[in-house]
Amino acid sequence: MKQTVVLALGGNALTRAGQAGTHDDQQANALGMARAVCGLLDDGCGVVIVHGNGPQVGALALQQEEGADLVPPQPLFSLGAMTQGQLGSLLGLTLRNACAGRAVRVASLVTHVLVDPADTAFTHPTKPIGPFFPPRQAQALAARRGWTVGEDAGRGYRRLVASPAPQAILEADAIRSLADAGFVVVAAGGGGIPVRSDHGRLTGVEAVVDKDLAAQRLASATGADSLVLVTDVDHVALDFGGTAQRIVQTMTADEADGHLRDGQFPPGSMGPKITAAVRFLRAGGRVAVVTSASHVLAALQGRHGTRIVASRAAAEAVP
Amino acid sequence: MKQTVVLALGGNALTRAGQAGTHDDQQANALGMARAVCGLLDDGCGVVIVHGNGPQVGALALQQEEGADLVPPQPLFSLGAMTQGQLGSLLGLTLRNACAGRAVRVASLVTHVLVDPADTAFTHPTKPIGPFFPPRQAQALAARRGWTVGEDAGRGYRRLVASPAPQAILEADAIRSLADAGFVVVAAGGGGIPVRSDHGRLTGVEAVVDKDLAAQRLASATGADSLVLVTDVDHVALDFGGTAQRIVQTMTADEADGHLRDGQFPPGSMGPKITAAVRFLRAGGRVAVVTSASHVLAALQGRHGTRIVASRAAAEAVP
Repeated sequence: MKQTVVLALGGNALTRAGQAGTHDDQQANALGMARAVCGLLDDGCGVVIVHGNGPQVGALALQQEEGADLVPPQPLFSLGAMTQGQLGSLLGLTLRNACAGRAVRVASLVTHVLVDPADTAFTHPTKPIGPFFPPRQAQALAARRGWTVGEDAGRGYRRLVASPAPQAILEADAIRSLADAGFVVVAAGGGGIPVRSDHGRLTGVEAVVDKDLAAQRLASATGADSLVLVTDVDHVALDFGGTAQRIVQTMTADEADGHLRDGQFPPGSMGPKITAAVRFLRAGGRVAVVTSASHVLAALQGRHGTRIVASRAAAEAVP
Repeated sequence: MKQTVVLALGGNALTRAGQAGTHDDQQANALGMARAVCGLLDDGCGVVIVHGNGPQVGALALQQEEGADLVPPQPLFSLGAMTQGQLGSLLGLTLRNACAGRAVRVASLVTHVLVDPADTAFTHPTKPIGPFFPPRQAQALAARRGWTVGEDAGRGYRRLVASPAPQAILEADAIRSLADAGFVVVAAGGGGIPVRSDHGRLTGVEAVVDKDLAAQRLASATGADSLVLVTDVDHVALDFGGTAQRIVQTMTADEADGHLRDGQFPPGSMGPKITAAVRFLRAGGRVAVVTSASHVLAALQGRHGTRIVASRAAAEAVP
């Protein structure tokens, strides 16, 4: 195998803002990711896919509440587990269908992630899930359900839940075992099902973990070569939206960390991607890439996107 | 490894009739299964668990319909995929917690099962899912949702869906790879996510596959030694409920097949278990066992339950 790549893909890429989130919507959206993965496989890479689940887990939570008169709602971590089945199946089937003429072997694995119950995230919910609502409906739902709600990127109001830091991927050895055996692995979906450990006893926790940060933990724990953070834009930009806006082709982990500290990257979008990239490189990873689904292979080859590397010397040794 | 055992466990064992099906209910119910698996691991066995999902997938379907004003319902096969995540996580965590002092490595795998779109099951729905309803409410739901409903075992009315025969387990090689690497594998949950293949193009199908028949396919495809069909009763009985009722300790595949043809085993309960056992043995399996969760190990050792074997000679070579 040429190299192993961990690909982190947003849940928003599967249910786009403005879409209702039908199965057909999700299937059509998954095709772009599937084509990117086929390109990597044709290039001889091993691939692990980590997907987000914000829209999908929020939709499930709403449905659970609406049906509460007939059957009891399940806890949020259990809904996260459900989205791993739902999207693991969707991605697995789409991938098999997209890579025409190639027998792709896919394994989607239910994955748990350890979090610290003392994480301050539990008192400051920041992760938006589910559909967007107009302000009045959001306030009504917040009052009725006991939700925290907040505005998301100027597109409307969404429910906010706790998003603690991922500390370890429980199934890292199973993921590595499957990847080594040649499977494309879908794992840590939705950032992983969050659990706490009390003297070794594991219980689910009401939270949704950031999938970029979980992908970094997974990539470092399994010894992956590259971490690809897929997003809507082709490149990372500095001074985004200002007159001095400029794209970044390559930066070192130290430079990226500096920009992060300077507040260049907003917490809900580019921030976790750059944080994940820096951590991955400092834990020994070779390269982290931020780009759009259609440019993943080109970015890994140094022809597109933003590459983040351990040092300037590494930056010049492309790819 | 002493032997590999495929354990088929009913979804009704996780949400018992009369229970609402809260997460706590399911967790408490999963403990019996977990203890049985710990016993098998202590005995040196490799274990693959196949769980049912009737109550859980039906509950999800209800919630999806109730929330339809806010977010679109997902198709039934997608709900089946969700229950694989939900129950794969639940069983995985319960198993890790139950086997105290032993580091159990569990891998729950999203699993698809190939079905024939021409299967007559699609025109004759027989598989009950979701909660039990009184007759009047069942009729109202049937009219409103376009459901088929039917009485289930005298305990009330439930929604009935198509249950086509499983033809192949798409992830058989991943399951085998994980089992060979020493993982307890949870796979083909809910009988597997049913898909059809049109010239190699895979699409989900509106159905719920029988988990005992799927467990047989999985057991035969992965070369398992034993197939254990876990149920509420300790033994298979002949002339069940009659004055001549008697339990069976051992029977051959031919004897079991004869009793099946004589109508000894009802289609919705013992029937698929005996069918699965007969098919497993005829495909080269060593022994099939029908018993309750608390007697699995004893039954495999020939001390309890009902054992079904290829021939009388095999029956005498216990275990």
